[in-house]
This record gives sequence, structure tokens and C-alpha cells, in this order.
Amino acid sequence: MNQSQPLIIDVHGHYTTAPKALENWRNQQIAGIKDPAAMPKVADLKISDDELRESIELNQLAKMKERGSDITIFSPRASFMAHHIGDFQVSSTWAAICNELCHRVSQLFPAHFVGAAMLPQSPGVDPKTCIPELEKCIQDYGFVGINLNPDPSGGHWTSPPLTDRHWYPIYEKMVEYDIPAMVHVSTSCNACFHTTGAHYLNADTTAFMQCIQGDLFKDFPTLKFLIPHGGGAVPYHWGRFRGLAQEMKKPLLQDHLLNNIFFDTCVYHQPGIDLLTQVIPVDNILFASEMIGAVRGIDPETGHYYDDTKRYVMATPHLTEAQRHQVFEGNARRVFSRLDARLKAQGK
Amino acid sequence: MNQSQPLIIDVHGHYTTAPKALENWRNQQIAGIKDPAAMPKVADLKISDDELRESIELNQLAKMKERGSDITIFSPRASFMAHHIGDFQVSSTWAAICNELCHRVSQLFPAHFVGAAMLPQSPGVDPKTCIPELEKCIQDYGFVGINLNPDPSGGHWTSPPLTDRHWYPIYEKMVEYDIPAMVHVSTSCNACFHTTGAHYLNADTTAFMQCIQGDLFKDFPTLKFLIPHGGGAVPYHWGRFRGLAQEMKKPLLQDHLLNNIFFDTCVYHQPGIDLLTQVIPVDNILFASEMIGAVRGIDPETGHYYDDTKRYVMATPHLTEAQRHQVFEGNARRVFSRLDARLKAQGK
Repeated sequence: MNQSQPLIIDVHGHYTTAPKALENWRNQQIAGIKDPAAMPKVADLKISDDELRESIELNQLAKMKERGSDITIFSPRASFMAHHIGDFQVSSTWAAICNELCHRVSQLFPAHFVGAAMLPQSPGVDPKTCIPELEKCIQDYGFVGINLNPDPSGGHWTSPPLTDRHWYPIYEKMVEYDIPAMVHVSTSCNACFHTTGAHYLNADTTAFMQCIQGDLFKDFPTLKFLIPHGGGAVPYHWGRFRGLAQEMKKPLLQDHLLNNIFFDTCVYHQPGIDLLTQVIPVDNILFASEMIGAVRGIDPETGHYYDDTKRYVMATPHLTEAQRHQVFEGNARRVFSRLDARLKAQGK
Repeated sequence: MNQSQPLIIDVHGHYTTAPKALENWRNQQIAGIKDPAAMPKVADLKISDDELRESIELNQLAKMKERGSDITIFSPRASFMAHHIGDFQVSSTWAAICNELCHRVSQLFPAHFVGAAMLPQSPGVDPKTCIPELEKCIQDYGFVGINLNPDPSGGHWTSPPLTDRHWYPIYEKMVEYDIPAMVHVSTSCNACFHTTGAHYLNADTTAFMQCIQGDLFKDFPTLKFLIPHGGGAVPYHWGRFRGLAQEMKKPLLQDHLLNNIFFDTCVYHQPGIDLLTQVIPVDNILFASEMIGAVRGIDPETGHYYDDTKRYVMATPHLTEAQRHQVFEGNARRVFSRLDARLKAQGK
């Protein structure tokens, strides 16, 4: 590990640029829910390595080179998980396909992409049904984390809070494998919530507050959650959350949650990253961009991509060089211990 | 109006300290939903002027004097609105009682409290049923604004977005009276959402994003929404929202929304207020504390009350003295034009 040149590890990337054949297959699958004769076979989906390569080289990898990031933790497209569609079987088939594609990308570009799994969640279905897919992704595919959807209903919030024993089978596996979960919802099917402008941020805030209310990390001291999108509203309202925890007679947030909860840097302007890095301890901040994701344009105020978050992390006055190193590399290796082990085996 | 000594107008206060008799009556009313014989009469609730005086003098007014604020725009306790309980008749009776108490407070302390109305909303009921209570509060009680709950279901989000014609009867009245609505949800009855730590902030973010998606202010160019709690996650993610509006081919947020949407300063730590005042144009920021509200403790990091937001507004480096004056007084008088008219009539 070169102290002066950190690896830049982006812990939040999705395969948003998969070949169109994937979306077509999914649309057929959705049609097949109502009309079983229309249900496609898994084998009907044919995507060549060349197509995968092109979809990555022209998109994520091009931008990683442009912006100077080295490794992306790469999971299936979040908005496409759509766990609310169909039943467990539908989700299970779909998750297997999406995870396998991310696995193939990670094999084609082993220096740049490392997988994280989507789970075959389905509303009202016991989360332990997700375990076989999770095991396959970690053991066979070498994935280093999972995405956990706290609301598989897609905006109706019909599952129990994340602190409920309902979720414990997943947590037991996470602890066994020492993998973190990024707490990430999918498409909203509730007209009140725009998917990326409301539902995602609300879920981030909601998950954090659920953890304040509960005592989950007493039961799972080594469990790790990554809250994406800079933690939703949490850092901006850090005083509110400290005050609410205090009224609930919980320990200081530092002790109650910050051994287990981490925030990414998917905040798309300089003042937001400045606040994040001022308020949240540096140990709890992991570099990420969610590129190519919800916000793909160029900010007319800066002339740079909104989601080029590396610029903001570089420019913030609240981090020393050593702390920036932590945000770019050290924290990711600590939280994603399986990534760290792999990098060490490569002499990195 | 003394230019060097602004009036300090707190635009977000609720009657959280009403005499216990109010809560007891409400509990009886709730019992009466299932058991009509138990349903109390309005006349059963007896609260004397002395009791009202004491509940204010020892609480809100004491803190206003301590902290140096002059006027509070005062509405019924937000978490007690609980529009999801019972039917329209239940909400209607309850809203009338709560609004009348705020009216009496405003009569007892005319220099310090000005009313804003809760509406008798009820899930699935046409919002136009709220008009008579609204008219009474503005015309007879002299209230200067309303609180509009975008989710009367209490965390299930079963109403259409705020941009839907469903809400237009309320907006027509607001425009007629030139009164703003604070977009404020009530208690969450969804176990996923903590009321003040998740549901409130999520609703703020959600309402703003609904307005980005729609074109409501083309239909109502003079409609004014106040988004409380510092705008939920919005200022922290201002880049994200600018970027999403851009992808949707909407005008710049400044033109699309900021003639009509305002944020309060209920953000309970200095870095949050610093971000708010750095990112949001000063014309769109109104001083508020929501005292005595969700976060009542003293911040051990500062030794001051979390919700003593005046300190943060005074200390932020992003406002000149003239801009602070705007935040404390000028903007409130512009947005709450009926308050301005009253103050002018008093020579203020």
C-alpha cells in the first residue's frame, strides 16, 4: 500500500449500463407473471462477453479512468431490483441473472470491479429465503458485500424495521462472512415518492433512525451497514439525531451506532461533502459516486459532472491528506474486509 | 420597523404544552370511535384562561424571552393532529378544538403569538371538506397560515402528490387569502418511520421532490409552501435536486420553485444552518425553531438547547446583518402577508 498514492475505491456503483437485452428479458418476465406462456427461460437471455466489455469500457470504466478511480464495488442496478414485482420465484430468478452479470463484469475487469449482491427479496417473504443466493455470490462469485432493501414493497414500507428479528437470518450470514450491507431501496411504486429524489433519501434517513431506536448492534456487534447517498438527511440533521438519541436515553451516537454504520460520499455538490466531512467522524465515511446513476449531467455551476464526487472530497477543507486516504481506501478496506484480503493477496 | 433591531419572528411553533385536559379529551374521543357511548362532547373540555396562560408563560414565552424572539406563528401540536385517526367528523371536531385553543393563546398574548391552522384532514376524504375550518381560522380568528399534511394516512402515503388536482380546493383558498401552507405531516402510524426522526424529514424531502416533478406553480403562481425542518434532506442534497431537475428538463430550481417554496431554520446544529444559508438563497429562508418540540434537550457539545436555532443563525458566516434581518423578519412578513399587514397596522 503506497501511502502517498491511495487506491481510489468507489464503494457504490451499479450496473446501470447493462446491454438492452437484460431489460427486454425483464420485461418479458414481468409479462410472464400474468401470462405464464410468455415467461422467458433464463437461457433465453444471451449477452456476450464482448457486449459486457463494451457496456463497461465506454461507460463506467471510461469515467473511472477520466476521474482517477481504481476499483468500483459493483452491484446490480438498484432501481431495477424492483422487489415488489412478482413473487419470490420471480425475484430469485431475476437476482440470479443480475448477480451473474456483475460477476462476469468482475471477471472481465478483475482489477477494476468487485461484486456486491442484490438479494432476491420479495414483500412478505421471509428474508432467510435470500440466503442461498447470498452464499453463492460470496462463496462462488467472490462478492464482498450485499445490498439490503429495507422496503421490498417499493414505497409502501410494509416490512418491519431493520432492527426487527425478521431480518436476523441475513445478519447472521453477514456476520459469518464479515460482509457489510449497503441499505438500498429500489424503484418506488408509490406515486408520492420519486425513486431517486425522495424514496432513496427517505430510506437512508429511515434506516438510520430505526437503528437509533433499536439496539441491533448489541445483538450483532460486528454487523456493518453502509448508508448510501451521504446518509440521506442524517448528517444535515446530525444535531436533531443526537438530540433524539439523548431524549431516548441512548448512548452517544458515536458509541450507539458509529462502530457499525458508515456513510458514503454520494452527495452531489461541494457544500454537502463539506458538511458530511465536518460532521461525521472520518472513520465512518467511504468514498463513492454511484456513477453512472441517478444524476448524470454536468453541473452548470462548476462545469463538472454532478456525480464526480472525488472532486468534492479532494477540495473539502475538512480532511487532511491522511484522512482523505482513509476515505478513499482505508475505510473501504476495513468495512469490506473481503476486498482487503483480496487486495493484500495481490500485494496491494 | 427598526432596521438595526429586527423583530425576531419564529414561523414554526406548535402548542405542544397544552394543559393535560386536552390530551385526556382526545383519548376519550378516540375511545368514542369504537364506543359511541364514550364519545365526549366538545363542551366537556374545560380549560381556563389561567391554565392557558400558565402553559405558555412557563414554557414557550419563557424561552422566547430567554432567547430573544418576539413573535411565534403558533399552530396546534403537529404530532397530535393524527389525521389518520377516525373519520372526517372526528378530525373536524378535533381540529376545531385545537385551533380554538391556539386562537385563545393568540388573544391572551397578542404581541407574541399569531395563529396558524391545522386542517381537519382525513385519509381518502376530499380536501375541500377542510375549507370551512380554514375560513373560520383566517376570517374569525385572524390566523395567518395553515399546516397542510401531505400524508393524512400517517406514514402510508395513500394520498396523491401535492401537485395533483386533488389538493387544488385548498390551494384556491390559500391564494384567495394570500396565506402560505407549512407542509407538515403528523404522527407516523407506520412502525418503519419514527415520527420526528424519519417521517417529518422524509415528508419534507418528498414534498419538495413532488414539486420538482410537477408544474404546480404554473397553475398557482402566488401559492406559497413553507417546508419545515430546514427542508428535510433538500439543502444537503441541493446538487442532486438541481441535477434531477436538469435531467427532467425543468427550469433551474431558482425559477421552477423558489418563487413559491421556502425553508425554515429548524436544523439543530451549527453546520446544518451553515449549509442551509450557504446553499439556499436568503430570500427563501425563514427563521424558526419549532420550540418546544421534538428535541428539547441541551446539546452537551455547546451547552445550549439544540433547538435554540437563533444562535446558529446569529453565528453563521454566510449571512450579512441585512440578510439576517431578512431571515428573522423580512421574509416572514413577505411570506405571511397577513402578519405583515397586522404588524404594519400596529406601526411595526
